[in-house]
Amino acid sequence: MENFFTIHKKALKSRARSGTIHTLHGDLQTPCFMTVGTKANVKTISSLQLEEIGVPVVLCNTYHLHLLPGEDLIAEMGGLHGFMNWQKPIFTDSGGYQIFSMGHGSVSEEIKGVRNSPTRRSLLKISEDGAVFRSYLDGSQKIITPESSIQIQNKLGADMIAVFDECTPFHVEKTYTRKSMEMTHRWLNRCIAEHQKLKSPQALYGIIQGGIYEDLREISLEYIAKSGTPGICIGGSLGQTKEQMYTIVDFVTQRLPVEKPVHLLGIGDLDDLVQGVAMGIDTFDCVAPTRNARHGRIFSSETPKNTLQVTNATFRNNHTPLDIHCSCAVCTQYSKSYIHYLFRAKEVLGMQLATYHNIWFLTRFMEKIRKSIENEQFEEEFQKKF
Amino acid sequence: MENFFTIHKKALKSRARSGTIHTLHGDLQTPCFMTVGTKANVKTISSLQLEEIGVPVVLCNTYHLHLLPGEDLIAEMGGLHGFMNWQKPIFTDSGGYQIFSMGHGSVSEEIKGVRNSPTRRSLLKISEDGAVFRSYLDGSQKIITPESSIQIQNKLGADMIAVFDECTPFHVEKTYTRKSMEMTHRWLNRCIAEHQKLKSPQALYGIIQGGIYEDLREISLEYIAKSGTPGICIGGSLGQTKEQMYTIVDFVTQRLPVEKPVHLLGIGDLDDLVQGVAMGIDTFDCVAPTRNARHGRIFSSETPKNTLQVTNATFRNNHTPLDIHCSCAVCTQYSKSYIHYLFRAKEVLGMQLATYHNIWFLTRFMEKIRKSIENEQFEEEFQKKF
Repeated sequence: MENFFTIHKKALKSRARSGTIHTLHGDLQTPCFMTVGTKANVKTISSLQLEEIGVPVVLCNTYHLHLLPGEDLIAEMGGLHGFMNWQKPIFTDSGGYQIFSMGHGSVSEEIKGVRNSPTRRSLLKISEDGAVFRSYLDGSQKIITPESSIQIQNKLGADMIAVFDECTPFHVEKTYTRKSMEMTHRWLNRCIAEHQKLKSPQALYGIIQGGIYEDLREISLEYIAKSGTPGICIGGSLGQTKEQMYTIVDFVTQRLPVEKPVHLLGIGDLDDLVQGVAMGIDTFDCVAPTRNARHGRIFSSETPKNTLQVTNATFRNNHTPLDIHCSCAVCTQYSKSYIHYLFRAKEVLGMQLATYHNIWFLTRFMEKIRKSIENEQFEEEFQKKF
Repeated sequence: MENFFTIHKKALKSRARSGTIHTLHGDLQTPCFMTVGTKANVKTISSLQLEEIGVPVVLCNTYHLHLLPGEDLIAEMGGLHGFMNWQKPIFTDSGGYQIFSMGHGSVSEEIKGVRNSPTRRSLLKISEDGAVFRSYLDGSQKIITPESSIQIQNKLGADMIAVFDECTPFHVEKTYTRKSMEMTHRWLNRCIAEHQKLKSPQALYGIIQGGIYEDLREISLEYIAKSGTPGICIGGSLGQTKEQMYTIVDFVTQRLPVEKPVHLLGIGDLDDLVQGVAMGIDTFDCVAPTRNARHGRIFSSETPKNTLQVTNATFRNNHTPLDIHCSCAVCTQYSKSYIHYLFRAKEVLGMQLATYHNIWFLTRFMEKIRKSIENEQFEEEFQKKF
């Protein structure tokens, strides 16, 4: 894949860079955030609204879409782009994260270092072949292999797709992490072979595993880099604290080939986005900005931490918008008071308005980061403040 | 109230007429449908989207808004118009329907003639003074009197408001219906007195009761007409069948003063709208078009009955929009297949898209009815087909 990624500008005092990822559905300016539309929609928001907001790219989930409505239906309906009526780039993750997340209890919490006793165990078996699990919809037994993950993603038709990996949780031993990583590497080869067999024009991303262990991360990043996938993801456990996460990401990114776009999976706090960009991350995705919105947790430049909880009683009669500095359709039209009330009254419109604003805020935030890199002001404008 | 209603054109072969209701928030062209926004929002849809659809008027509910967030907060936030950011006309019902609906079990079903054993009984006492009930939110005891209903509606600030009435259900005896009607008439006088005391510029609507009994309906319609309220609602039980409803509405409308705008409470099937207009009804409201949308029941000119159930398996891979003749933002962008899937996946976006379309369809439907009256084509274009 020639010219998948072009770097425009590199920051002076960090590894931050601006670039363009050239996809089948147009150019994607980086650094950027991929809004998560797990089930072929960003919850409560239409693709028309995403377009209005200026969202540049959406990330959908292979695991969920395989179970419902199934990749064959989506292919019949024109792929994800046709199905959800979204003509800009789409990324699909491989399904690995969700399968293993449900298998191990809550991987999302474990990845962030929170120990948690497993609640649901739908994962039946992990073997060299792939992962056997139960559908959470009807209990039927399913298997996803590296090959089938690529086949499914081929039918879904995203512009960027991910290799099938075992997403190793935080609490496992180093021995397990190593063995798992080695299997993920063998799966990588099978994914690449399947991808070549399908002659798919989709851009394949390899995923670096290795958990919190620098020696394993080094092995994995070299393996992925050598495999020649056009894009690279950093996956797996990033430790228990932000500092540990930054240490691992920093360790990895400084050793990666600079010419490849790097995606950091599942990270989306504002400070993490800034630090990630500073370390050379080009794209991010995370459910937090949209999930938080649905719980009334709002991005707002009015507070030092850039968030406020609109459901707090203090906002009951607040005339001002969610963010007095925001020019989105929600902030120019509705008060904190009204949105506070909608949440209290359990009206889903509250979630819609909050989601719209949070995505708008984050989209503008990433645009400003990009612009600051172009203007050689990234460190001054962002890195020092976050 | 001078010049509250202007009649433009009367149909030749029916009592259908086109007109304009002059409100504090602009002119309202009739016949029209009031989209129901019970809790200061049309479920899943923002006022911006209503504006985009061209919705002319919204109906909100005094009972629910009194309980949450309370009329004082709404008054502080600029009334309903300011609170929900809607600058076109608003109608508030008096709260009577909901209080008695919860008191008698399900009045909404009883009004339509379905006998139903009471499930919830929050109504504690009806007396000459008013209605004592329990809040469904916190169980606290509340009272609404004719006077307080007008005070609450005054604070909510709608353009058109309704007198407090006892909404008599279908299953009660004629004796009860008569006594209830007589009390509603005495409440009417108290509402008018309170309204005058407040010097409110809001347009008050009296409500005709009398159930399915023509002699009672005649007493009530004469009482309401004589009271001099600028608008008139037809309320209470309209019988068990559509034929019975048409008989009652026809009986009432042919005896009403022609110069008053007449609102038919709680009716919204397409055929009922057409027959209602033919009998001289000017405005309607009903939760069905939006509630149906949230259950996947869609207005579509593709079927003889103008509805389809998008959740039916047959639409799983249907490429066409909800209505191939519709030009709304949903129908120009999304397939039945996608919306079918969103409902199956329990994604609220499905409800939003369906609601948007149903309101659009109904708004255009009423516009066409009005235009056909203006063109002297109403009976040919509508009445004969429904």
